[in-house]
Amino acid sequence: MRGTGKMTTGPVPPPKSILLHEVGLRDGLQMESRVVPFEKKAAWLSSLLDSGMDIIQVGSFVHPVKVPQMADTDELFRRFTAEKKSKTLLSGLVLNEKGLERGLACGVEMFCMGASASETHSRKNTGMGTDEALTRIIAAAKAALAAGKKVQVSVQSAFGCGFEGPVQEERVLKMVRAYLEAGLVNISLADTAGHASPAQVERLFSAVFALNAGADCACHFHNTYGLGMANMFAAMRAGVNSFETSFAGLGGCPFTRVAAGNVASEDFVHALQLDGRRKDISLDRLLEVARDAAALFGRDMQGFVYKTGPVRAKSAV
Amino acid sequence: MRGTGKMTTGPVPPPKSILLHEVGLRDGLQMESRVVPFEKKAAWLSSLLDSGMDIIQVGSFVHPVKVPQMADTDELFRRFTAEKKSKTLLSGLVLNEKGLERGLACGVEMFCMGASASETHSRKNTGMGTDEALTRIIAAAKAALAAGKKVQVSVQSAFGCGFEGPVQEERVLKMVRAYLEAGLVNISLADTAGHASPAQVERLFSAVFALNAGADCACHFHNTYGLGMANMFAAMRAGVNSFETSFAGLGGCPFTRVAAGNVASEDFVHALQLDGRRKDISLDRLLEVARDAAALFGRDMQGFVYKTGPVRAKSAV
Repeated sequence: MRGTGKMTTGPVPPPKSILLHEVGLRDGLQMESRVVPFEKKAAWLSSLLDSGMDIIQVGSFVHPVKVPQMADTDELFRRFTAEKKSKTLLSGLVLNEKGLERGLACGVEMFCMGASASETHSRKNTGMGTDEALTRIIAAAKAALAAGKKVQVSVQSAFGCGFEGPVQEERVLKMVRAYLEAGLVNISLADTAGHASPAQVERLFSAVFALNAGADCACHFHNTYGLGMANMFAAMRAGVNSFETSFAGLGGCPFTRVAAGNVASEDFVHALQLDGRRKDISLDRLLEVARDAAALFGRDMQGFVYKTGPVRAKSAV
Repeated sequence: MRGTGKMTTGPVPPPKSILLHEVGLRDGLQMESRVVPFEKKAAWLSSLLDSGMDIIQVGSFVHPVKVPQMADTDELFRRFTAEKKSKTLLSGLVLNEKGLERGLACGVEMFCMGASASETHSRKNTGMGTDEALTRIIAAAKAALAAGKKVQVSVQSAFGCGFEGPVQEERVLKMVRAYLEAGLVNISLADTAGHASPAQVERLFSAVFALNAGADCACHFHNTYGLGMANMFAAMRAGVNSFETSFAGLGGCPFTRVAAGNVASEDFVHALQLDGRRKDISLDRLLEVARDAAALFGRDMQGFVYKTGPVRAKSAV
C-alpha cells in the first residue's frame, strides 16, 4: 500500500463517505447455473462480514423455481441475523409483495427493490410494464419503511437497455420523482446492460441531485463494454456515495440480453486504498473470497486484483 | 450507436479534441513471445490506417536481439511511408541515438522517446540511471526536432513502479521541467506498471499543466489492476488530449515486473462514440483487427467490445 500522500489533494474532493455494498451473493450468483451449496455461501458471507463491507446483499426473494440459486435466501438471512455481531447491514432484493413478506419474516435489515426504466426489460423481468411495476414497488417500499426497515429503491436499465437500446433520461427522472414524492430518498441507478458512459453517469446523477440535493444515491454498473470502473469514479464525482460491487466481478441479470459482470469489489476497494481511503476494509478477506469463487467456478473471473495481487511497495531488485 | 443527445451537456466539458494514438504494434506486440509475421503486421497496420486513428505507432528501434518481435520495424516504416495516403501520423519509439538514426532513415514521422522516473526500471530498461537516460533522450529529441520531425517525450513509470513501488511526484515533475526547458512540450506520462489511480492521474497532470498550460499532454495506462479506462477519463478531465491505446488491449513492458495490457483501442473509441464523439473513426475496422489478433494468439484478449459487439439501438423483442 502507498503512503497517505495521495489522499487529499485531488482537484475535486470525493464525497466524505463511501458506502460499499457487496452484491455478489445476489447479482453475482443469480447468473450462475451451478447452484452454490448453502455452506459455501455461508462461508463467503462470513468472510465478507469480516472484510468490513458496509452492506452485504445476501440474496433475492424471487420464486425458487425461477432462480433456483436463490432458494436458500431466507435460510441464509436467518442464520446470519441470529448471530450477527458486526455493524454491516444485510440487504435483500425483493421483487414483489410476497418477497417483502418473506424478507420481513427472516430478518432483512435493508430492502432493495426497483423497477426498470425499459418497458421491455420490465415486462421480461416482472410481467408488468414500468408504470404498474413502479406503483407496486413504491407501495412495497413504503410498507418496508413503515415496518422500520431501511429501504433502497432503484431504477434498473437507467442508462440503456439490451433490448431497447437508449433509454430516455426523462423516463428515469420521472421514476426518480415518483420515488422522491413517496418519501423514498435512497435511490440507486442501475446500469443493468452496461451501456453507461462516464459523461452520461455524471449528467444523470447530477439531474437527480438537482431534483433533491439530499438524496442518498447509489450506483450499480456492469462491465459489459469495459466501462464499469470508469463509471464508478464518474458517479463518485457527481456526489454518489454508495457503490454496489460483486466479489470477483461476478454478475449479470438473467432477464436482460447482454450483461457482463459487476465491477469487482476487491478491485474497487483496492483502487480506493491506493488513495488512502477505506483502509478499514480488509482487502485480504475480499481477495480470499474472490479466489475461492474462481476455484469453485473453475474459470477466470473478471476481477483483476485477485490475479495480480495488490500494488505493494517493493524493495528495489 | 446512440443519438447525439448525449454529446454536450456533461457537467465538465471534455477537451475540444481527442487524439487517438494506437500503440498495439509496438507496446502490444513487444510482450508477445510469438513473432508476428511481417505480412500480418502490415495487414493490421493497413486496417488501422483505414480506421482513421490519428497516430499509429509502427514499432520500436530496439536491438533485434533484445526484442526479436521488433526486428522488422524499419521495413514496416519503409513500406507504409512510401505509399501512405491518409493523414495519420506514423510514430516510432526510439531508445537511443542509434534508434534515432534508424528512424530518420526509414521515414518515421513522429518520434516517441522517454526515460523512466524509477531508477530501477530505468537501469533495467536502458542500463542507465534516470539522470543519464534523461540527458541522452533530451539530446536525441532535440536532434529529431531539428530534423523537422514531430517529437513526443515521455516519463515512464510516472505513477508507480513494479520494482520500487511508489514514485515521488516531484521526480516526475523534475523530468517534465527538464523537457519543457528543452522546448519539448509534447509530453506523455506513462503508467508502465498500472499503479495509477484516477485521483493521482488528475493531480499529476494538473501539476504538469501548472508548469506549462500550453503543454500537449498524452497519457498511457496499463490495466494491471483494472483501472486503465477510469484513468483515461481522469486524464481527459485534467485536460490531456492524446490517448495511447492498443488494439485488443495488447500490451506490457518486457522490462518491468507486473504489467497487464493497455486500454483496448476499440473499447476507448466505443466509449467515446457512446457520447457521440470521434464518430469519424471506424470502430468496425478496429474490431476486425482485435478479433484477428485474438485468433492469431489463440486466447481471450483483454478488450471487451470485440467480444460483445458494440452497443446498438435494438428494436424491442
